[in-house]
Amino acid sequence: MSNSSSRIGTVHLVGAGPGDADLLTLRAARLVMNARVLVHDGLVDPSILAMAPKGCRMISVAKSRSRHTMKQGEINALLVREALAGNDVVRLKGGDPFVFGRGGEEAEDCLAAGVPVQVVPGVSAAMGAAAAAMIPLTHRESASIVSFVAGQCKGLTDQNWAGLAGVGRTLVIYMGVATSEAIAEKLMADGLAPEMPVAVVENAARPQMRVLRGTLAGLGCLVADNKVRSPALIVIGEVAGRGDMMELRQVLEAAR
Amino acid sequence: MSNSSSRIGTVHLVGAGPGDADLLTLRAARLVMNARVLVHDGLVDPSILAMAPKGCRMISVAKSRSRHTMKQGEINALLVREALAGNDVVRLKGGDPFVFGRGGEEAEDCLAAGVPVQVVPGVSAAMGAAAAAMIPLTHRESASIVSFVAGQCKGLTDQNWAGLAGVGRTLVIYMGVATSEAIAEKLMADGLAPEMPVAVVENAARPQMRVLRGTLAGLGCLVADNKVRSPALIVIGEVAGRGDMMELRQVLEAAR
Repeated sequence: MSNSSSRIGTVHLVGAGPGDADLLTLRAARLVMNARVLVHDGLVDPSILAMAPKGCRMISVAKSRSRHTMKQGEINALLVREALAGNDVVRLKGGDPFVFGRGGEEAEDCLAAGVPVQVVPGVSAAMGAAAAAMIPLTHRESASIVSFVAGQCKGLTDQNWAGLAGVGRTLVIYMGVATSEAIAEKLMADGLAPEMPVAVVENAARPQMRVLRGTLAGLGCLVADNKVRSPALIVIGEVAGRGDMMELRQVLEAAR
Repeated sequence: MSNSSSRIGTVHLVGAGPGDADLLTLRAARLVMNARVLVHDGLVDPSILAMAPKGCRMISVAKSRSRHTMKQGEINALLVREALAGNDVVRLKGGDPFVFGRGGEEAEDCLAAGVPVQVVPGVSAAMGAAAAAMIPLTHRESASIVSFVAGQCKGLTDQNWAGLAGVGRTLVIYMGVATSEAIAEKLMADGLAPEMPVAVVENAARPQMRVLRGTLAGLGCLVADNKVRSPALIVIGEVAGRGDMMELRQVLEAAR
């Protein structure tokens, strides 16, 4: 064994996938089941946290009640501090660490402090929602491009989304529920057709999942009338309409 | 037990992830380990196929030698035929079924024939490559948008990629090795800076992985000089440069 006073732990940035513990990767599951220090976000499902061993020290960096989270700099400092104290750290994030997960910032700060980092990719929320709602994100007849954006990142007005959605393209918006009406207006102002199909997937890959369908012009009302809450994804493009037909067929099939 | 002459099997469209068997989801691993009929692409790693039980009937729909694949319509018909004959089918695809996997077409044909479909999302190649090469696909300072396109889909000239890459945006190109020079020219003609960082990730999440870095103007030479072969992904954007620094730090750290 190495001298504990000089040993530096490794930080594992681990994607926990879209929610269902069954959608963890084998590597992620093994890391969680052997974790001694586990730092997690509010979005990681309790069933996944329950996989950690009894002696594991769990640190939540999201105060779920107030919906305020620890500042990113503080999280980075926490990871560095734990690793420099000799602890291997499992840093568990919903989805994939490198897609709207701020894994890049955490990795950079760790490496700058001389802390080794390993990244374990995860099933991103978009893929989890697409599978659950039967929405092919790309399709030879409907979309050859798929783009991911964040609806709450740095303020909507600063962001230029022109050209990301439309015929032949699928746009997936993470964290866009609170701003859905503004998103629809912004995209229509960019030239998108009001009747473009949309799907809102709330709690993707969880038992309480809901899939709501409509058109771009009705997106704001769809979200408001159904009291959609995060976590939810918005999918905009022809593929959302294909998913509608597929889901209907699935329901009919199951009812036979 | 249901009457075997009338039973219809379920088709499970399963993402096998980027390569490494350790990056299968728990659900995918369970399905493979219990499969009786498994239909797979050439890109699925042999270590994953080896997880199937002894009695499993394995059907490859990719002739890896000639690099010709079974026509998509024939694959769809095969899945429907097997399911109507009463067999549950595990249809295993590299990455995620709904991202450049033609899972949508397979699901639609199955459902149209009255065959139930379940989709198991997977870690898409982009996330696998990003994690392995330490490239954050989004980053507060470098990219708030990430887009996926296919370099060989329907011919490059038909595709309009204007606006997908550039400052604040990450573009990931699947299956773009053979056309990398034309891709670079196309993007520069759209106004992208010749010195925009690029990374080419060959065999992501496999032991023989290579990560090559350069600039957009040099992309064609980078691929040709290093004899890059598929499967490989091309990442274009500032984040490719961040990954370069992170990888360097990791190497220095490991060498301490």
